[in-house]
Amino acid sequence: VHKHVSDSTVRRLSHYLRALEVLEIEGPFTVSSEELAERGGTTAAQVRKDLSHFGSFGKRGLGYAVPQLAAKLRSILGLNRRWRVALVGAGRIGSALFAYPDFKQRGFDVVAVLDSDPEKIGACWGDVRVAPADHLDEVIRTLGIELVVLAIPADAVQEVADRAVAAGAHGILNFAPKQVRVPKGVHLKHVNLVMELEALSFAINQDGGPA
Amino acid sequence: VHKHVSDSTVRRLSHYLRALEVLEIEGPFTVSSEELAERGGTTAAQVRKDLSHFGSFGKRGLGYAVPQLAAKLRSILGLNRRWRVALVGAGRIGSALFAYPDFKQRGFDVVAVLDSDPEKIGACWGDVRVAPADHLDEVIRTLGIELVVLAIPADAVQEVADRAVAAGAHGILNFAPKQVRVPKGVHLKHVNLVMELEALSFAINQDGGPA
Repeated sequence: VHKHVSDSTVRRLSHYLRALEVLEIEGPFTVSSEELAERGGTTAAQVRKDLSHFGSFGKRGLGYAVPQLAAKLRSILGLNRRWRVALVGAGRIGSALFAYPDFKQRGFDVVAVLDSDPEKIGACWGDVRVAPADHLDEVIRTLGIELVVLAIPADAVQEVADRAVAAGAHGILNFAPKQVRVPKGVHLKHVNLVMELEALSFAINQDGGPA
Repeated sequence: VHKHVSDSTVRRLSHYLRALEVLEIEGPFTVSSEELAERGGTTAAQVRKDLSHFGSFGKRGLGYAVPQLAAKLRSILGLNRRWRVALVGAGRIGSALFAYPDFKQRGFDVVAVLDSDPEKIGACWGDVRVAPADHLDEVIRTLGIELVVLAIPADAVQEVADRAVAAGAHGILNFAPKQVRVPKGVHLKHVNLVMELEALSFAINQDGGPA
């Protein structure tokens, strides 16, 4: 168990894995930290440091064996198995997420979609039927769901997160523009689309002169 | 100009501003670093460190004056003005983004939507008509667009980013699951929705035992 791995390290591991997966198809069979760094948008020293959290890989002068390092990263990232995901919120963001092809390819199966709008309940999304949001607890328990994605309005998000956690969810991905609290032991990620734009406006604003 | 402000600092500034804006309405008029830390999900020392990048705020024992600190953070984040945004990609993610109410409220005006699909071109989205993706250069120049949001397939993203930059865009927000390169002086943020789920699967996987 690796306690002090930062969010940015985890993100870089995801990027390294993507680079390795291209190499798995296109070759070559080995890759240096320099090459991995270039493909991951970082430095060779950072690659070595990131990987050193998880043991010893590669040989000095020989680089990393691509298939082995890819397999190891999949295992570290929990991608050598499938995850059962419930999506709460069948609105625009929910439907965009549901249609995102990479989720399934990466092992994330959206096996339930829930909404509180009677007009949406009962609709078929692929082979998933939109269920009433009231059924969240039952859905999580009976389908063995571990990850819950919240694509619902901000005012509902804490209550739904609380119910998801009580029913046994281990991870929450929140798209609502509101911070959510979860108890210790439950993992939370927040995607705030406006904050991503704010990070750009900050950076451009800094270019313009002193604040 | 503040060169060494990390992405996570910028993100926390966005959170502090949100907390301050609640206080602007609900009171009280002053706030301590402790209170701001609690609302921003961090520590008082971190709050003080984050703010110290931008000058001296607050008085020991008295805390921060809420309206002044909020105004200062808006200025730092570039939110005391409006930004003209073009959205490339009128698919599911694009339409979800377009409908996101907080963009406008925060000063981001999506004044152009572009797509290469003849079935989408010409559609009216609010008071914006979907334009052909070919017109990107012209749209950026004539509308004075600074920020470009890419919600298009991965294989098209580098070419469109190159064109956006050549036409004068200063910031790119990329939703495609592919890394994009931009020249120095142009700012880039990447939102990879699968990577957010991977960060959760990583964390849950770490709970389960040694990697």
